[in-house]
Amino acid sequence: MRIGIYGYGNLGRGVELALEHNPDMELVGIFTRRNPAHVRTATMAAVHGTDRVEDFADDIDVMLLCGGSATDLPKMTPQIARLFNVVDSFDTHAHIPEHFERVNRAALETEHTALISGGWDPGLFSLARLYMNAALPAGKDYTFWGRGVSQGHSDAIRRIPGVKDARQYTVPIDEAVNRILAGETPDLTARQKHLRECYVVAEDGADREKIAQAIRTMPDYFADYDTTVTFITEEEMNRDHSGMPHGGQVIRSGKTHGDHRHVMSFSLNLDSNPEFTGSVLLACARAVGKAHARGQKGCITLFDVPPADLSPLSGEELRRHLL
Amino acid sequence: MRIGIYGYGNLGRGVELALEHNPDMELVGIFTRRNPAHVRTATMAAVHGTDRVEDFADDIDVMLLCGGSATDLPKMTPQIARLFNVVDSFDTHAHIPEHFERVNRAALETEHTALISGGWDPGLFSLARLYMNAALPAGKDYTFWGRGVSQGHSDAIRRIPGVKDARQYTVPIDEAVNRILAGETPDLTARQKHLRECYVVAEDGADREKIAQAIRTMPDYFADYDTTVTFITEEEMNRDHSGMPHGGQVIRSGKTHGDHRHVMSFSLNLDSNPEFTGSVLLACARAVGKAHARGQKGCITLFDVPPADLSPLSGEELRRHLL
Repeated sequence: MRIGIYGYGNLGRGVELALEHNPDMELVGIFTRRNPAHVRTATMAAVHGTDRVEDFADDIDVMLLCGGSATDLPKMTPQIARLFNVVDSFDTHAHIPEHFERVNRAALETEHTALISGGWDPGLFSLARLYMNAALPAGKDYTFWGRGVSQGHSDAIRRIPGVKDARQYTVPIDEAVNRILAGETPDLTARQKHLRECYVVAEDGADREKIAQAIRTMPDYFADYDTTVTFITEEEMNRDHSGMPHGGQVIRSGKTHGDHRHVMSFSLNLDSNPEFTGSVLLACARAVGKAHARGQKGCITLFDVPPADLSPLSGEELRRHLL
Repeated sequence: MRIGIYGYGNLGRGVELALEHNPDMELVGIFTRRNPAHVRTATMAAVHGTDRVEDFADDIDVMLLCGGSATDLPKMTPQIARLFNVVDSFDTHAHIPEHFERVNRAALETEHTALISGGWDPGLFSLARLYMNAALPAGKDYTFWGRGVSQGHSDAIRRIPGVKDARQYTVPIDEAVNRILAGETPDLTARQKHLRECYVVAEDGADREKIAQAIRTMPDYFADYDTTVTFITEEEMNRDHSGMPHGGQVIRSGKTHGDHRHVMSFSLNLDSNPEFTGSVLLACARAVGKAHARGQKGCITLFDVPPADLSPLSGEELRRHLL
């Protein structure tokens, strides 16, 4: 399977590195909006300008779209789905229905197959929620995220005057997780589910108390949470906070008959969010390739993918070794 | 969707009770090899002899086969798949490939759809293994079972002379689970993964030390494990050990690039193994009904089922609420 990577930030690089463990796939090229001559890739892969992407229409089976959900993907996915089978990781939950419709129209027009919202949330966590709801219709879902870096929250801190750099960790509250795993089904506020840990490098002479106050009171991002703010040096930031760990847990607690309770849980603990997400997107690409070969056109999500399609193994091998 | 239950032991009763939370399904009848007049069902469902099953060919969309894997299902599933779309919970891992082939031939001949090996292991645990392997190709799988009652091991103890009743719990060893969740990938023996806890009611005058010795040295079942044997009274057995709890955990630990490690885990903690398994089989029945309506014939497993097929919700509802 011939793969292309469209967009070369953290996620694009994660996909590139994840290819190492997917020998049935070959990277044809990376497409960037920057000057290709100035882009250094992790594996010496070929780099091209996005303006040349149409030249590769016959050379790439599935294009992995590695742009951001806020501004890139709403335009990028329908546009590139007219040229290629594509996979994206669109993760703005509230806008998934309209994104789906737009991508579906574009892909159907040119008979391509497009999988949106791949990755782990949305993605593997969505699958966990769906399987758990189907297996246990009477129950309650919980999703916890972290401990992990939230780019959106880190960026929000960086926009505060006097802030040079910032990293925000979302941290699930163990007590809440453990109550639910023990079979309780509490109603929890945002504050009862997650803490927000902020590490900030202030500019020389900045008013630290004012920065901390601006963070703690920021609506939507921090005001509804217990938030810690720790000022550190630039050296400490680079030494201790350059990784991109993440993870989380989906739990469903419910019952069948009488007071027979059942608790299901799916958890991830990831050293590198972009590399793991990239690895999941490659599995999605494999499924898109198979769906397209079968004649399935338009937009799909992981909810529509027979799990076997994600694997390089045959149905017989899967039944023998994993069933 | 019109459902039939074929075989009325613990699992058949579990399916019957799980129907309570699946309002899109209707129970047409329960089929038993016993005298129907002597069978009391949990919900006053209609009971028929298995000899009358052919009369219901037009009245049942999917038949749930609730026999045992050792002797019932190898014959029952191909036989009933000639008359109905079926779901079974065949769980003898080593014989799944041949069972699949036999059921596939029978179902194809009469254009039915048959899903085998539904439930949680095989079933949801198999799905966890498949998704985890696809998402993280370089890694190592672990499966732990319990704390839960093993019928096979309980039966093995009951066959020892002097034993009146017995219940065996399989117990995962926390230390092993925690090492793996922390990112280690040890090679573990059977003894390092699970304990076997046995509760035994001895007959009056039986030699308890001899019974305990016979259990601990029994090849395959107990000899390779640390096994505890506790003698209790019949009253204690009925009071403390009449439930059928079970559960377990699938873990995959692996890496992407360099030393970036990732740990994925799926766990179940079930008060009632037959009711939860029954609930999963109903979701499988829903998927079989949809696959058959689409024209998909022959034998399938959960590996072949688009997850959305397991849910009563539409694709649009699923994308809006669970993605």
